[in-house]
Amino acid sequence: MALGEFDLIAKFFKRPVRRAALGVGDDCALLNVAPGMQLAVSSDMLVEGRHFLSTVAPARLGHKALAVNLSDLAACGARPLAFTLALSLPRADEAFLEGLASGLFALAEEHGIELVGGDTTAGPLNLCITVFGEVPAGQALLRSGARAGDDLWVSHPLGGGIGDARLALEVFRGRLTLDGRDFENVRHAMEQPRPRVALGQALRGLAHSAIDVSDGLLGDLGHVLRGSQLGARVDADALPRSAVLAAQPRALQLECGLAGGDDYELLFSAPPARREAVRAAAHAAGVGVARIGELQAEPGLRLVDGYGVPLQAEFASFDHFRSA
Amino acid sequence: MALGEFDLIAKFFKRPVRRAALGVGDDCALLNVAPGMQLAVSSDMLVEGRHFLSTVAPARLGHKALAVNLSDLAACGARPLAFTLALSLPRADEAFLEGLASGLFALAEEHGIELVGGDTTAGPLNLCITVFGEVPAGQALLRSGARAGDDLWVSHPLGGGIGDARLALEVFRGRLTLDGRDFENVRHAMEQPRPRVALGQALRGLAHSAIDVSDGLLGDLGHVLRGSQLGARVDADALPRSAVLAAQPRALQLECGLAGGDDYELLFSAPPARREAVRAAAHAAGVGVARIGELQAEPGLRLVDGYGVPLQAEFASFDHFRSA
Repeated sequence: MALGEFDLIAKFFKRPVRRAALGVGDDCALLNVAPGMQLAVSSDMLVEGRHFLSTVAPARLGHKALAVNLSDLAACGARPLAFTLALSLPRADEAFLEGLASGLFALAEEHGIELVGGDTTAGPLNLCITVFGEVPAGQALLRSGARAGDDLWVSHPLGGGIGDARLALEVFRGRLTLDGRDFENVRHAMEQPRPRVALGQALRGLAHSAIDVSDGLLGDLGHVLRGSQLGARVDADALPRSAVLAAQPRALQLECGLAGGDDYELLFSAPPARREAVRAAAHAAGVGVARIGELQAEPGLRLVDGYGVPLQAEFASFDHFRSA
Repeated sequence: MALGEFDLIAKFFKRPVRRAALGVGDDCALLNVAPGMQLAVSSDMLVEGRHFLSTVAPARLGHKALAVNLSDLAACGARPLAFTLALSLPRADEAFLEGLASGLFALAEEHGIELVGGDTTAGPLNLCITVFGEVPAGQALLRSGARAGDDLWVSHPLGGGIGDARLALEVFRGRLTLDGRDFENVRHAMEQPRPRVALGQALRGLAHSAIDVSDGLLGDLGHVLRGSQLGARVDADALPRSAVLAAQPRALQLECGLAGGDDYELLFSAPPARREAVRAAAHAAGVGVARIGELQAEPGLRLVDGYGVPLQAEFASFDHFRSA
C-alpha cells in the first residue's frame, strides 16, 4: 500500500494529540509515565478467520480488536493510556477503514485513550494492537499472586453470564440455531466484549491474582494455578449463565462456560474476608461477580457440581477440547 | 495455534527477565521508566511477500524484523529498552521458529534489550514488533525540527553506501544480475540492516531533525520537509554508494540511492557550525556520514548534480516511482 498509505493514516486514524507528548506521524510516539508508576504493555494480533469472521461489521471488529487488548490491561489492574495499531489490509477499502476506525475510536474515547502510532501495509487482513497503561509500582494484579484459601471469582455482565460468545460461535458453525433475538444477544457478546477496566483497577489491593478469560475459563485458570503453584476447586453450577445459555442442554452450558473463551471477563482470587469489598468494587464498576470456587494448596483442578460431586468426565473432555 | 501456543512461547521466546519489572507470561509486561525520561514507542508489521521474500533465512528475518523497529528508535535518538512480538504463522514449524528466535535475540542482545510480551496465532505469516525506548524528556529527534540552512546528512556503512538493498531486490526481480560476491554483499544490506542506534543517541542535542530511510531517501526527506515546512537542495552526486552500486549505470545508481528504500540509515539535519561534531559522533558510533545537501526556506525539493545542475527529469521519475 505504498500508494496512499500516508493519506489513509491521516484520513482515518490521525486525531489531535492529548495525553501523549507526541502522537501519530513521527518515527516514534513519545509517552510520559508519571513517577512511581510502571508502564503496563500488551500486544494482541487478530487474524481474519481465526479471531473474527469475514462477515463481521468493520465497526465491531474495531471495537473488539481494542477491547481484547484493554482486557489485558484490566487483568493487571492498569489504567489505559494509549495504543498503537499495525494493520495489514488486502486493499485500501475506505468503507472498511471508516467502519473500523469508528468502532475503534468509540471504545478508545470511552476509556479516554488515544492512538499514538502504528503502521499500515498491504497483505492478508491482520490487526495488531499494542496497548499501554499505568499502574502504581508493585500493585499490578498478577497470575502468580493467588494464595490457598482464596475465593475464586469471575466477573459477568449484569443479568448475563459467561459462555455466550462461544454459543454464538456454535450458531455460526451451524451446530445449533437460536431465535433471532437470542442470537443477537449472544452475537453481541462475541463481537462486542466489554473490557473490565474499571473492575480491574478497583481490585488493586483487594484481589491476590487476576487473569482475563480469553482462551476459556478452565484453560486460563490453569495459567493462574501454574503461576501460583496451587490447585483449585471449581463449582460448575455456580458459573454465571445468561438466560439464553441457561436454556441450552447442560453439557453445552458447561462446554461454553468452562471452555468457551472469548469472554474477556476477569477471573480473579481474593481472600474470603474481602467478599463484601469485592462485591462493592463490582457494584461500583457496574458489573456482576460470581464466586465459583476456591484456590487450594493441593495441585490440580477439581471440577464439581453444586452438590460437590466430581465432574471428572466433563473436565477431561474440556481439557481435550481446549488443546484440540 | 491453540495447540501448543504456550509451549512454543516458552520454548523459543521466553528468556530471563532483566530490565523489565515483569516479562513474558502474564497479561501485560511491566516496564519501569526513569523519572525525567519519556517512553518512545514504535510498531512495525512485516508481511511475507511484501517486506521479505519467502526464501529468506528465518534468522535473517528475525534480525530484520527487530532491526526495522530499532531503526525508528534510532531516528528519535532513543535508547532501546524492550520489545513485544506478535506472530502469525501458517503452522508451528520448529526449525523456522528456532531460526527466527536466534536472529531476533542476537540483535536484541547486541542492544541489551529483552522481549517482554507478545502473542502467537495461526494465520498467514506476519510479524508485528513494538519497541520501547527511553529518551530524556524534550530531547527526542523529530521530523519537525529542521531549520533552513541546516546541512542534510545521511549515514552509511563504513566503506559502503545507500541503495544496496534496492539493488538486491532488483536482482531478485530478475532485472539485473550480479557476480556471486557482489550479490551476497547487497543481499546482506537488504536482509541484515544495521539500525543506527548509537548514532541516533549521539545526535541528540546536535541534529535538528532525523528520520530513518525506510521508504526511499527522497520520500522520507519529504516527511521532514512537510514536518518542518521547508524545502531542500539534494546533491545526487554526493550520495554515498558502495563499490557494487557505483559499478552500475548512473540512472540505476540514482534510482536505488534516492528512491530505493529499506536502507535503515539516518537522514538528519544539523547546523553547518556542527559539522565536526557530527563527524565525531559518527566516528564514535562506527558509521559513515555524508553531507548530501541543505535545508532551505523555499518549499520544494531541488535535485542537482555535483556541478549544481538541476536533475528535474530524474527527480520527476523518482517521484512517480515512489508513489507507484
